[in-house]
Amino acid sequence: MDKGNHYEVKDMSLASQGHKNLELAELNMGALLKVRERFAKEKPLKDIRIGLALHVTKETAILVRTLIAGGADVAITGCNPLSTQDDVAAALADEGVKVWAYKGETKEDYYRYINKIIEFKPHITIDDGCDLVSEIHKNHAHLIPDIICGCEETTTGIIRLKAMEKDNALKYPMIAVNDNMTKHLVDNYYGTGQSTVDGILRATNVLLAGKNFVVAGYGSCGKGVAKRAQAMGANVIVTEVDQFCALQAAYDGYKVMRMEDAAKIGDIYCTVTGNKHVIRMEHVKNMKNGSILCNSGHFDNEIDIPALEKGAESKREVRTSMDEYIVGGKKIFVLGEGRLVNLAAAEGHPSEVMSTSFCGQALACEYGVQNRGKMENKVLQLPVELDDDISGLQLTAMGIEIDELTQEQKDYLDSWEEGT
Amino acid sequence: MDKGNHYEVKDMSLASQGHKNLELAELNMGALLKVRERFAKEKPLKDIRIGLALHVTKETAILVRTLIAGGADVAITGCNPLSTQDDVAAALADEGVKVWAYKGETKEDYYRYINKIIEFKPHITIDDGCDLVSEIHKNHAHLIPDIICGCEETTTGIIRLKAMEKDNALKYPMIAVNDNMTKHLVDNYYGTGQSTVDGILRATNVLLAGKNFVVAGYGSCGKGVAKRAQAMGANVIVTEVDQFCALQAAYDGYKVMRMEDAAKIGDIYCTVTGNKHVIRMEHVKNMKNGSILCNSGHFDNEIDIPALEKGAESKREVRTSMDEYIVGGKKIFVLGEGRLVNLAAAEGHPSEVMSTSFCGQALACEYGVQNRGKMENKVLQLPVELDDDISGLQLTAMGIEIDELTQEQKDYLDSWEEGT
Amino acid sequence: MDKGNHYEVKDMSLASQGHKNLELAELNMGALLKVRERFAKEKPLKDIRIGLALHVTKETAILVRTLIAGGADVAITGCNPLSTQDDVAAALADEGVKVWAYKGETKEDYYRYINKIIEFKPHITIDDGCDLVSEIHKNHAHLIPDIICGCEETTTGIIRLKAMEKDNALKYPMIAVNDNMTKHLVDNYYGTGQSTVDGILRATNVLLAGKNFVVAGYGSCGKGVAKRAQAMGANVIVTEVDQFCALQAAYDGYKVMRMEDAAKIGDIYCTVTGNKHVIRMEHVKNMKNGSILCNSGHFDNEIDIPALEKGAESKREVRTSMDEYIVGGKKIFVLGEGRLVNLAAAEGHPSEVMSTSFCGQALACEYGVQNRGKMENKVLQLPVELDDDISGLQLTAMGIEIDELTQEQKDYLDSWEEGT
Amino acid sequence: MDKGNHYEVKDMSLASQGHKNLELAELNMGALLKVRERFAKEKPLKDIRIGLALHVTKETAILVRTLIAGGADVAITGCNPLSTQDDVAAALADEGVKVWAYKGETKEDYYRYINKIIEFKPHITIDDGCDLVSEIHKNHAHLIPDIICGCEETTTGIIRLKAMEKDNALKYPMIAVNDNMTKHLVDNYYGTGQSTVDGILRATNVLLAGKNFVVAGYGSCGKGVAKRAQAMGANVIVTEVDQFCALQAAYDGYKVMRMEDAAKIGDIYCTVTGNKHVIRMEHVKNMKNGSILCNSGHFDNEIDIPALEKGAESKREVRTSMDEYIVGGKKIFVLGEGRLVNLAAAEGHPSEVMSTSFCGQALACEYGVQNRGKMENKVLQLPVELDDDISGLQLTAMGIEIDELTQEQKDYLDSWEEGT
Repeated sequence: MDKGNHYEVKDMSLASQGHKNLELAELNMGALLKVRERFAKEKPLKDIRIGLALHVTKETAILVRTLIAGGADVAITGCNPLSTQDDVAAALADEGVKVWAYKGETKEDYYRYINKIIEFKPHITIDDGCDLVSEIHKNHAHLIPDIICGCEETTTGIIRLKAMEKDNALKYPMIAVNDNMTKHLVDNYYGTGQSTVDGILRATNVLLAGKNFVVAGYGSCGKGVAKRAQAMGANVIVTEVDQFCALQAAYDGYKVMRMEDAAKIGDIYCTVTGNKHVIRMEHVKNMKNGSILCNSGHFDNEIDIPALEKGAESKREVRTSMDEYIVGGKKIFVLGEGRLVNLAAAEGHPSEVMSTSFCGQALACEYGVQNRGKMENKVLQLPVELDDDISGLQLTAMGIEIDELTQEQKDYLDSWEEGT
Repeated sequence: MDKGNHYEVKDMSLASQGHKNLELAELNMGALLKVRERFAKEKPLKDIRIGLALHVTKETAILVRTLIAGGADVAITGCNPLSTQDDVAAALADEGVKVWAYKGETKEDYYRYINKIIEFKPHITIDDGCDLVSEIHKNHAHLIPDIICGCEETTTGIIRLKAMEKDNALKYPMIAVNDNMTKHLVDNYYGTGQSTVDGILRATNVLLAGKNFVVAGYGSCGKGVAKRAQAMGANVIVTEVDQFCALQAAYDGYKVMRMEDAAKIGDIYCTVTGNKHVIRMEHVKNMKNGSILCNSGHFDNEIDIPALEKGAESKREVRTSMDEYIVGGKKIFVLGEGRLVNLAAAEGHPSEVMSTSFCGQALACEYGVQNRGKMENKVLQLPVELDDDISGLQLTAMGIEIDELTQEQKDYLDSWEEGT
Repeated sequence: MDKGNHYEVKDMSLASQGHKNLELAELNMGALLKVRERFAKEKPLKDIRIGLALHVTKETAILVRTLIAGGADVAITGCNPLSTQDDVAAALADEGVKVWAYKGETKEDYYRYINKIIEFKPHITIDDGCDLVSEIHKNHAHLIPDIICGCEETTTGIIRLKAMEKDNALKYPMIAVNDNMTKHLVDNYYGTGQSTVDGILRATNVLLAGKNFVVAGYGSCGKGVAKRAQAMGANVIVTEVDQFCALQAAYDGYKVMRMEDAAKIGDIYCTVTGNKHVIRMEHVKNMKNGSILCNSGHFDNEIDIPALEKGAESKREVRTSMDEYIVGGKKIFVLGEGRLVNLAAAEGHPSEVMSTSFCGQALACEYGVQNRGKMENKVLQLPVELDDDISGLQLTAMGIEIDELTQEQKDYLDSWEEGT
Repeated sequence: MDKGNHYEVKDMSLASQGHKNLELAELNMGALLKVRERFAKEKPLKDIRIGLALHVTKETAILVRTLIAGGADVAITGCNPLSTQDDVAAALADEGVKVWAYKGETKEDYYRYINKIIEFKPHITIDDGCDLVSEIHKNHAHLIPDIICGCEETTTGIIRLKAMEKDNALKYPMIAVNDNMTKHLVDNYYGTGQSTVDGILRATNVLLAGKNFVVAGYGSCGKGVAKRAQAMGANVIVTEVDQFCALQAAYDGYKVMRMEDAAKIGDIYCTVTGNKHVIRMEHVKNMKNGSILCNSGHFDNEIDIPALEKGAESKREVRTSMDEYIVGGKKIFVLGEGRLVNLAAAEGHPSEVMSTSFCGQALACEYGVQNRGKMENKVLQLPVELDDDISGLQLTAMGIEIDELTQEQKDYLDSWEEGT
């Protein structure tokens, strides 16, 4: 571990590779660069301390640069013990950013680093999964008066925040950046779809064609994973608890069944529900020899790993990110310890996806500063115009031109008298 | 034309074929049959007059039967001059239903029939495109005090109603049945997707594989049309005015461009925007010889047909539902006169799709009666629980069983303290 | 029936609609038009009598025009009692072509018309399913010495011809036009794929999304049908007897199982095997209420209709091309009487597909004349260069330009010394 | 480098990981294990020396074990300097196999190792790309009299061998294992399709959705790559020199154009042609900033790397397997040095794919021994029955049961008298 005044990272000698990766990220994050350009001129975040608990990836680093360009002081740690890219952490430290993160953090370090961010006394918190907000509410409530707002990146975090809101436990305003269309409809669907398949392939190198691929959960993430898995030739089976999502899955041509039935025929299982213990020991016991289990939901509790640890006859690592458990004499493989496989075994969302997602974070910070003191202690949405602007920046970055409404069309949309 | 006390239809001798079609429809409308069964017992619509302006198809007939089973008195006309299935209209008349509709209605008859429904003094109006509501507001406002609510089936109608609401012109409550997930996410996407391709094939029998297929509009309908067209082997091009939808189209692998550019390379064009004059003479003039134009949006003004009529050197019908215009010496084909091609050239949404859509209409009527006088004169949503129930009915009809949340999972979703 | 010296067709008043359809066909048959242009100049078929037993469709009419342009005298009948387009037959008669065909021919008329072609003493026979060749061999062998060759259009015919060849029963040379890549890899796959789905939709208007769609046979036709059915949202199940095709189906992401197992869960069944009695009464008895059966293989014996007729409690037509049988109290629907559903319920292959297929027939006739007396009494392939030329004509018609090999690349492909 | 009497590998301490990988491979190579079981009993390769130049991967190791089980003495080297998995090589050495290979071999070592295999005086050669056969013909012709046959794994090798055959330069019989359906239709299509996308993602982590993805070559490999790329959301463009393949690409819904046109709009380029210099400096100069180039064809000359090295302003490695060239001020990235990206940046074909492919190699060796001295010095095919058996073994391994022909059906297929 390399430690400095403003950082703890794995290895500072990785900084050079990290810088190259940041260059690559910027190539595909044209929309965010446009925001950075404007921020550099307008300095909307001047004198604002922003504390981040996000996956420390090359894309997050470009967000960090954007916030700094806007005038902010930034401190960052990870939001998942396995997701830090050590070369990126080193590059950030090298650029003078306050960064505490390494891949494979102990639980102790994980929470120690969260507290490093809290000690930084952020005016704005940016979270991916709500751990930072949760820790502040539980153990550092005295800091809350100085906090402008929090920004939450992921569905799982929003679910937790809404539970807090319902309990009147939420003590400062939260901007649900996740709810931007340019975030959750892009990141969850296109990002998770590709990167989950990517993670499974890197971890296992199995042929997806011809496999029974069970997707647990058919929200935006599950839709993306199912689509990409089928696209690679898998026969996709969906399990759901939501009746409408189940109906969509059936109409999308997938088999829909209960997990207890899917467990008998699946070859590969991927959980993306946002809930816990979706795959339980009762299911695992019925699985075929050689079954592969992984998770692409935010937390590592979608597969009941503790029960597996307890119930398995033995366990060993057979490949990087691939553990073999023997259960009833059958081999059951778990990828990335049940943590999100797209980060544990691959590199998380591609830069393009994070570009619009992080435009949302950057603009949410600006919005928070502009509306300081005016926001309620609730889970809030960004105005749809900001979301729309982000789409426009990304289209421009992709070199795509689209139509505009003619005046006649605008009038028509506002009218109601013209009929059949 | 066959006329009776309670009907005007094309040909009563078609009733026997109509009855067979209703039998077929019921085979695929299990969810709606379940609602009918309950309505028959509970009679929630007792003494309620319901006036419908919907596409008079075999599926609508099952809705009519459901409303009658619930105790209602029903009168129906079409909502599009080309969409009536004459055998179904005859079967309904034969069952004693008040019905005024035939395929190929004159504009005069169309509005005369709308007024037949108004004369019936409905307590509830059910509309597909808002013509009935619009006519009542414009010319029969004195009837409004007795009206409980209106139910609107389609996006285009909702757009008009919201324009009315914004102008404070809306004088009775409107339930946006269209906004049910089991309606607009099923009907617009799966229904319009399949039936539009179906209509194009019936009208033209061209090979879609290898064609440049331009989809104007990438909302739910456009997404469905694009997906099915690509699935048949077409190279899909999308035009849009909404930046986020354009971005989705690009990420879904389609070419996105301005209509003026698409117009030079397309082989087939399909408009599904809900807006007017999306394909204009300036575009048509640049099109290739043999280009095929059609519309799957609600109104027939998405392609500027009047301009084409005026600007073309000649026009003739070359096949049923397929007119040839000569423009600058090039053959330009228009399907179904620019009216929605899935109804004009095919049979509209399949029964399965209309099953959940019309569960929404039936339950909206019941909801309206239950909440009589309590609803504002606004565009209202049905409670999400009703929508969810509809999904459940359809899953049951399909023989699909899904998981339920365990108690542990319910608790987890309500909690916010458990973290990484 | 309208009869003349040189024709028997349904109704000569349909000729005008037929001529319009031929115009439409020509729009999409650019490759064949190029052959016709050349034939018109070079007259390679001068004084040759060509007898055709092909589906009498608008596309076949363009082949007829091409052969005539080349100098041939042509007589044509159908090759399937349900596939004639009556307006096209009328148009051909109107152009002076010898034509005997109507939709819905009796078995008696079918063979009477085959014999009309034989009476014409053709030098070349063009068959789709081998009935003409078979009838000549069985009952008119004395004509064989004057016959140059036969051309066979379909896989089923080729199977029969190879059986004849194996038995030394083949008495004149047969050109397997079917074996052209521009025929069987286009027509069977793209043509049958689209038109089968088209036929099912026209016959039933059911929603394919969410249906269990059973494809029996995974050759080129089955691959096309499965792909398009999945593309429309169906969950596809494949049955096969060939081990490699079964493996391909599994790797393509479909469920593969025995028909006895598929029969319990399917919603729609489509046979495309080239074999007989693929769906038998033992299967039908296990099917779900409302199951839909159809065939897209050449002959109408893939579904054992006689057994169904005998074993069903009742039968009635419920829609055009859709018969309902009651079997064990359950409704079982058969489309187009078990004849090929893409012709019985839709319009067969689109013009684009037949363009390259019929280039093959036209060039096979020319090749036959050029090689008169030099060909063995076997099933022969056309030289691959001709096939390649057809692809080139079609690419040109589609406005597509492709790369050519550089000299360096040509040399490289001919060399073997350059290595890793 | 670790060297022993019978091996040269990177690091013997990797053997333990290698053994784990072999266990994993066996889990997915059920068909080959069945062959091994039989070989172990029947010893069909007793006293036969087999020399292999194949990618040294975990799957190849299972082939090696199978050949040894059959009684053979085996020596192996790589067939590509970048494709050896060092842990597998170590595991093989550890099992006593003669193995010379490491990842990143110098050209000198590459040929030195080829000669190690030749010194072993193999009775049978197994090649992937023909380098071993070529070297024997060029420099060790005196060994040829003792050679029974060669087995060639890949299309590129077959092209070279057929060039040799045409030149009468082929001096011993070659079995085109590549031409087994269970090889080239599985490996080239499913294997290359998945693993190429896998390689690109591992090398770059770019989002494929929304990218213009240019596939050069639309043979089996190109079809697989195009399908998977589109499936991941890319907009696929195909370049071809073969007219029929170009037509298929167009009908499959891809844009088809010349490379000089594609070069202006592509984001990612992948060559899979089997030809050389498919992407040349004249193309690269027109490419967009950030373009990514890779190759999935056998040899590393499909992209003209020497010209790029010469013409670029600068070059540096920016990520593992990803080099950045600056050309005209624009960044152009090349993956895996232009060698096959699925091996250089990922792990090559999955085990399932190699299972049937290597059944073919094992059965070809057995066939060669059985037919020793009876085979001509030509490129030969295995009997189709062997190929069929391989499919059957794989279906069994996947737990799939299929239909068998009834006697009635067999008779029908052999008959030709039954007609319409």
